[in-house]
Amino acid sequence: MSNKYFPLLMVAALAGSVVNAQSDIDDFKVSSTTQQGKQFPKVNSQGAVRVSIAAPQANLVQLDIGGKKYDLKKDTAGIWTGESAPQDVGFHYYQLNVDGASVPDPGSFYYYGASRWGSGIEIPAADSAFFALKNVPHGDLRKSYYFSKSSNRMRPVYIYTPPGYEKETAKKYPVLYLQHGMGENETGWGGQGYAGLIMDNLIAEGKANPFIIVMENSSVNLGGMRRPAAPAQGQTPPAQGAPANARTPGGGMNFAAEFEKVLFNDLIPYIEANYRVIASPENRAMAGLSMGGMQTRSLVMANPEKFAYVGMFSSGTFVPSEISDINAFKKNGKLVFMSFGGKEAGAARIPAAAEAWNKIGIKGVSYVSPETGHEWHSWRRSLYEFAPLLFKK
Amino acid sequence: MSNKYFPLLMVAALAGSVVNAQSDIDDFKVSSTTQQGKQFPKVNSQGAVRVSIAAPQANLVQLDIGGKKYDLKKDTAGIWTGESAPQDVGFHYYQLNVDGASVPDPGSFYYYGASRWGSGIEIPAADSAFFALKNVPHGDLRKSYYFSKSSNRMRPVYIYTPPGYEKETAKKYPVLYLQHGMGENETGWGGQGYAGLIMDNLIAEGKANPFIIVMENSSVNLGGMRRPAAPAQGQTPPAQGAPANARTPGGGMNFAAEFEKVLFNDLIPYIEANYRVIASPENRAMAGLSMGGMQTRSLVMANPEKFAYVGMFSSGTFVPSEISDINAFKKNGKLVFMSFGGKEAGAARIPAAAEAWNKIGIKGVSYVSPETGHEWHSWRRSLYEFAPLLFKK
Repeated sequence: MSNKYFPLLMVAALAGSVVNAQSDIDDFKVSSTTQQGKQFPKVNSQGAVRVSIAAPQANLVQLDIGGKKYDLKKDTAGIWTGESAPQDVGFHYYQLNVDGASVPDPGSFYYYGASRWGSGIEIPAADSAFFALKNVPHGDLRKSYYFSKSSNRMRPVYIYTPPGYEKETAKKYPVLYLQHGMGENETGWGGQGYAGLIMDNLIAEGKANPFIIVMENSSVNLGGMRRPAAPAQGQTPPAQGAPANARTPGGGMNFAAEFEKVLFNDLIPYIEANYRVIASPENRAMAGLSMGGMQTRSLVMANPEKFAYVGMFSSGTFVPSEISDINAFKKNGKLVFMSFGGKEAGAARIPAAAEAWNKIGIKGVSYVSPETGHEWHSWRRSLYEFAPLLFKK
Repeated sequence: MSNKYFPLLMVAALAGSVVNAQSDIDDFKVSSTTQQGKQFPKVNSQGAVRVSIAAPQANLVQLDIGGKKYDLKKDTAGIWTGESAPQDVGFHYYQLNVDGASVPDPGSFYYYGASRWGSGIEIPAADSAFFALKNVPHGDLRKSYYFSKSSNRMRPVYIYTPPGYEKETAKKYPVLYLQHGMGENETGWGGQGYAGLIMDNLIAEGKANPFIIVMENSSVNLGGMRRPAAPAQGQTPPAQGAPANARTPGGGMNFAAEFEKVLFNDLIPYIEANYRVIASPENRAMAGLSMGGMQTRSLVMANPEKFAYVGMFSSGTFVPSEISDINAFKKNGKLVFMSFGGKEAGAARIPAAAEAWNKIGIKGVSYVSPETGHEWHSWRRSLYEFAPLLFKK
């Protein structure tokens, strides 16, 4: 028996060496992403994450966040508790490891990212008011389904309609097609991205013109999507074979060609036929984060006359010379917006790329999100900067 | 050290006695509630659930479903796998236990029930076509926010608008206020309840008149709801202190009085002012499951003139003598519908209660869901039977 359990005891012994991160400041509070009634996860003013879970018979329990694993410490009641090092402000995916089992934290809400539904946590930012739930008129975030000939299946789509859309039944609106990153799906922008609340707040402050936002899954693998309906809260499976690495700019190119078919043959026609949309290039924008921005660029390069406004968030640079028929883009093109988190390497390259657009008479804008990396807070801020520039009369 | 780890070894030893349930038929398939790309959980033709998780250092891993815990068996690679006994058709909440840690299955989608976000699994039913995603016109399931004076906060609300609502901008619709059970929230009917798909299919077959469905959280604790916005996919926290037991008919009475304020002072006025609703009792229905049905009954008893159609799913019986001012209800009242799962004790009592309504000239209908208990498949079927009876001209 000792033989059988020796490795197990080794692990148990190792559990003694607890990585206790910089959580000097003991002002931990439950996060906005902690389930109601749960006491953990918590975050302190330094951005350290504290988790706690009962696992009386476990030998080693870890918090796995930001690419690092932090050992938790077990108390006499069998409750394991511990903290991470301070994390960047904004949203991070994470998980717990219990004796080698990688599982969601039972205390958190669950989000789709890194190609799985699992735990996420919000580290409060000083500028969180722009996506806060306020007592202002709110639009609706809708889930609907449409038939995609290209996919030969019904596909779910999320649609944000702005405040006023419901009442002003004669009014038509411009549309932004807004894409997620690799390993994410159509629920990301409305969920951890808070796109609806960002727009509600911008519109309430008179900083943005109301427009519709369409969010679909651009990780399209036409061979692989034969799954039943996902639950209505938006837990839509990603395309089969979507790479587990959620953050490989360029990897999105595998999907761009197939998503192009869905977008132009199925999605845009459905939206323009079924919602009160101004169906013209001058009233059509496309943007995305990471892979979604790479796809946006390649779709605009292949269809330069179809979009007036282009946004790439943490997706590299885009310059006029990349469009073979630049005059086709100049016909309707009004804006090319590029952003990065300040901690991303690409941040230094976007001002020059923006200037290249200004030189040919199309507005080029670059934005760098202070103190953030390749994560959702950079993209929320990017949408907040991008949206006011759209559909100016 | 042996002292310290003795209990742990005991547990490990016990893990030898694996409850291997009736999974004779090895035709396990991934469930519709299994995350895309994940191989587990699976279900076989007998309704047995098979889960599998890597936990190399674990001593005991169990599947916790239907009130029973089933030990899993560990292979040489450290993968634990095992099955439950056959489960009723339909939807069940479940969890995994890893060395005493109760956690969601990383392979499943997550649902709100039993007062937590966690795993759920669908056991295929012979009659699953009525809530399947089909190539028919689809309505929109929307999430919006409104200010509740009674709660002094913004509250999320889910609203189903039927196919045609978007195009026929002059048309107004009747409304069903549809409530969840205890320990559940406003995401239940649109999620595991598939209310939107049930209506889309009924309307496509011409079996139901199109109407709007409003789904709010009736576990109202006006003292306790001060949480930030939940993610858009509908992960809205329940009221603080909502009992962990999701299934105590009658317990809902604690909440009915406070929900009544939100419903009549805030929610109904918001819906009738902001959506294309026919704002009259003859065009207003209320129904709910379990606690939600108990609340429906008490709200109708207190406001007999405000609803024409009443539905109680697995919520006991309702008879005319319970309404003090029966003439007020007779003014607008058209239908009282009561249902139970065939495995529930209450099933035997509803035909007589329905007959009592028929006797006083209000249509009384009872429905028993074959072979199901106090679970979502009973309530999906109940909505499918109830909806065609509503708002008949």
